[in-house]
Amino acid sequence: MRWSEAHIPTLRDAPADAEAVSHKLLVRGGFIRQLAAGSYTMLPLGQKVRLKVTGIIREEMDAIGGQEMVLPTLHPAEVWKKSERYDLMGENLFKLKDRKGTDLVLGMTEEEIFAMLATELFSYRDLPQIWYQMHTKFRDEPRPKSGLLRVREFTMKDSYTLDIDGPGLDAGFDKHHEAYKRIFARIGLTAIGVQASSGAMGGSESIEFMQRSDAGEDWVVTCENCDYRANIQKAVSTLPEVDDDESSELTRFATPGLRTINALADAHPDIATAERQIKSLVYVVDGEPVIVLLRGDHDLQEQKLMDAIGAADLRASLPEEIRDLLGADPGSLGAVGVEGVRILADPALKGRLGMTTGANEDDWHYKGVDVSRDIDVTQWAELRAITTGETCVECGHSLELWKGIEVGHIFKLGTKYSEAFGAYVQDEDGESRPIIMGSYGIGVERGMAAVVEANHDENGIIWPVSVAPFEVVITVVRVDDEQTRAVAEDLYNKLEGAGTDVLLDDRVERPGVKFADSELIGIPYRITVGPRGVAEGVVELTERRGLEKENVALGEVATTVIDSVGRHRFGI
Amino acid sequence: MRWSEAHIPTLRDAPADAEAVSHKLLVRGGFIRQLAAGSYTMLPLGQKVRLKVTGIIREEMDAIGGQEMVLPTLHPAEVWKKSERYDLMGENLFKLKDRKGTDLVLGMTEEEIFAMLATELFSYRDLPQIWYQMHTKFRDEPRPKSGLLRVREFTMKDSYTLDIDGPGLDAGFDKHHEAYKRIFARIGLTAIGVQASSGAMGGSESIEFMQRSDAGEDWVVTCENCDYRANIQKAVSTLPEVDDDESSELTRFATPGLRTINALADAHPDIATAERQIKSLVYVVDGEPVIVLLRGDHDLQEQKLMDAIGAADLRASLPEEIRDLLGADPGSLGAVGVEGVRILADPALKGRLGMTTGANEDDWHYKGVDVSRDIDVTQWAELRAITTGETCVECGHSLELWKGIEVGHIFKLGTKYSEAFGAYVQDEDGESRPIIMGSYGIGVERGMAAVVEANHDENGIIWPVSVAPFEVVITVVRVDDEQTRAVAEDLYNKLEGAGTDVLLDDRVERPGVKFADSELIGIPYRITVGPRGVAEGVVELTERRGLEKENVALGEVATTVIDSVGRHRFGI
Repeated sequence: MRWSEAHIPTLRDAPADAEAVSHKLLVRGGFIRQLAAGSYTMLPLGQKVRLKVTGIIREEMDAIGGQEMVLPTLHPAEVWKKSERYDLMGENLFKLKDRKGTDLVLGMTEEEIFAMLATELFSYRDLPQIWYQMHTKFRDEPRPKSGLLRVREFTMKDSYTLDIDGPGLDAGFDKHHEAYKRIFARIGLTAIGVQASSGAMGGSESIEFMQRSDAGEDWVVTCENCDYRANIQKAVSTLPEVDDDESSELTRFATPGLRTINALADAHPDIATAERQIKSLVYVVDGEPVIVLLRGDHDLQEQKLMDAIGAADLRASLPEEIRDLLGADPGSLGAVGVEGVRILADPALKGRLGMTTGANEDDWHYKGVDVSRDIDVTQWAELRAITTGETCVECGHSLELWKGIEVGHIFKLGTKYSEAFGAYVQDEDGESRPIIMGSYGIGVERGMAAVVEANHDENGIIWPVSVAPFEVVITVVRVDDEQTRAVAEDLYNKLEGAGTDVLLDDRVERPGVKFADSELIGIPYRITVGPRGVAEGVVELTERRGLEKENVALGEVATTVIDSVGRHRFGI
Repeated sequence: MRWSEAHIPTLRDAPADAEAVSHKLLVRGGFIRQLAAGSYTMLPLGQKVRLKVTGIIREEMDAIGGQEMVLPTLHPAEVWKKSERYDLMGENLFKLKDRKGTDLVLGMTEEEIFAMLATELFSYRDLPQIWYQMHTKFRDEPRPKSGLLRVREFTMKDSYTLDIDGPGLDAGFDKHHEAYKRIFARIGLTAIGVQASSGAMGGSESIEFMQRSDAGEDWVVTCENCDYRANIQKAVSTLPEVDDDESSELTRFATPGLRTINALADAHPDIATAERQIKSLVYVVDGEPVIVLLRGDHDLQEQKLMDAIGAADLRASLPEEIRDLLGADPGSLGAVGVEGVRILADPALKGRLGMTTGANEDDWHYKGVDVSRDIDVTQWAELRAITTGETCVECGHSLELWKGIEVGHIFKLGTKYSEAFGAYVQDEDGESRPIIMGSYGIGVERGMAAVVEANHDENGIIWPVSVAPFEVVITVVRVDDEQTRAVAEDLYNKLEGAGTDVLLDDRVERPGVKFADSELIGIPYRITVGPRGVAEGVVELTERRGLEKENVALGEVATTVIDSVGRHRFGI
């Protein structure tokens, strides 16, 4: 394509609200334009990248036996009511009515519809199946942000495995795991799989693929030594053994004005260091009050609380609710002697002696708390948020926390949807069994943004050849010089003829503008054709990554570039 | 792919409500499944066809310089209000609100958003541009029907030309015209371009591409002799000259009980044959009453009335509205002496003498009506529906009417949207001018259905190689015969290795079932591998079109099929 005819509206400035590098560079480079909050047009360059990304995903999905479909995005609400996700998804689900008043929703994911389609499978012989699509999904995000990283409308590759038994599910899950690793590597990401919460989707094993990036919204915990990797929502660590005193008597003591962990610790360093306090929090989980107990120096990871209870919805209790429940205000709360309320406690409190906690009377605490003697814990569960430097449960080395972009997610889903929609098959013994499903997703545009987060420098994007909008740009230094232009056109035709994706910068612009634009939009190879070089029979070849330049003989440059592009086109 | 692993849920019976052949065959062949009225899933076979169709469209759009984008489907309602289409599209437009209460719509077409994007063009030098996308469109059809032919959610290739002047628009329009002809021919249609109404889109020239089919919902008028082709909404014809009597006196006469054209003609054959009557209809057009006058033997074509007025909305008047307006009931209506109401008359009435019409008093008519003397016509306009056998305006030969499926539509749109959204550029003289737009659409899934309507027999679909889900099926007559199976597998690998899209029917089924299925799903070539043939060193090659069989030497069949597929893959 000729740049003079292409629509590549590069901008000098990024949108005022843009913080993420990918947001800035994709807008400035003329890849995307915002229509409304969380809603973007893919301009021609963006769509070229998107087609290459979806092409790679398609190749890898087909390679594991995936069969592609396309499902409607507008669903009858009754389908979502049947799976109980209509209420569960709350305001994230776009809801509307048609002209007849029928309730509809815009699909967020498509477990329901795929389970309905699976009712046309009849026998274990029809399994396994891997079904996928790459189609539009909608989420009414409360806070769309960061360009393509968090949007309200996007393309998702969602796939579903259908199996007769657990080993079948495991095999389909593993195939996806491997396919995802190949996909991310091919498009230029270093994303790794980490243990994750299954959240509202239900199901058992769940792995997220995380691309390390400051623009990420997730925290990932990894071990400096071994392969331990988990989302902070799921991560655990080994705590050092605590050497408590002997069990002592439970004693109330006055703590006027001491309403925080730190204040109490400062006032009573002998009996109430943060590690010897019990932090008592009150939440409303799926409408019911829950008391959450943590060690004083630990913080709650809310997703862990949801997962422990299998809940869909959670909020902190309001001060008046807490007073009604426990008779005191935050700062003096505790679970000693409390009955009739669900009490969840973190294992860091298990067996602890001589602890301090609120007495459920303002300005009074208990000391000498023996957790197993004095508190009627309903459920022990990993609840605390891990912090950097804690100890790996696998190998004892140190854990690190970093921010990541979730670019993919794979789930062992189970039979929730097949049971809800009647997707049963006969097994080898003629027994009817619900199909076991797995569910797998990749956000296409978020993946593109993650590639930019992972591949850029101060001049702009550095696209890997595999997903670059163009593989080569030929920059004509002086379009008014007939010979220069003829040489450039000739090169252009040669490269095009060889199937290279080439952009001819034939614009009437200063060379500096052309160089800056080509670096901003991130074309992997640039051939600069100028009058002086042409006279000497050389052109300048610049690799976008590193921006190293070398002079190459005019007669050789096409072959050099075609070879190099060919070696990198597949990715990895 | 192996049929034993593929999801191809063929059915013996079509859905009870299916009338269109494409609806029946696409469901029975396992290409599509209905989720709700007008809402279909593309199963794997359907998606394979769809990808080939979109691939051909993309090639041809790129060949005319089109640049692909993807626009959001969820639009702020304010955008549609700005173009005045929010109300104009009425109930066809899906409307919803987000969690913040912002009004949104689901896009039907995307003139608005493309015009907004065009505000980043600044100079005539940035033009022309051809921008396109292939993305989901939504229409809340009152009566979805006929499978993929009339749906509520579908993929549209919509494109837009952006030009500085009329000749530029003409050039972009012509490029599309040619590209569309190639696209339809390549996917296996014989669709022709016909003159069409621009309808609610506005604009000047408008051509629809019509595929002849009984499943069509449009009527097309073509000349048996020349190139005259028009949608009935736009078609005109030459009427034979009428030799009226001299002008005579306007006379009221009693017509008790004569309330129809036929009844009046029967009772007064001397003065009131249908051709000598004036048919008077009353409509409400954009909220205002309009009297429509036609010759007694002619029928109104409602779109022509809309186009004549430039109206968006039309309905027949209610009896009470008519009585309020004219003082009489239908059957005795007329326009003689009527003032203060818009009166539109068809040219077939122009200059007519001695006509009969209602007198706006029940059971009374006028005779001796001299149209130009007695009726104050506000506007003369082509209003009547053409019928078969009428005379071509171009060449005088006979016109034919047939039903067609609209598979594409190209419009000269003008500056409506660029003016509304401020898409202006500077011309060569530095003057600011609104960009002139053209708008062009192809319904992808409707196109697929049209291919089936045009390519099938009593056994099933006959896909052209260019869009067939598989190009070749290898039917293994006895999968339990080791040698047969080995020969088939070997052939399968050879064909796959050569890049052929091949399906290996390795199912444990009777040969009759396999033959019937392969004919139902319409694979262009079938290679039947059976024990007897293998013993003799031959296989049977069957072309789907015509179902002629021939024995081919085992050593030659791969080459024969690869050659034949290669010759037809491009289409045309």
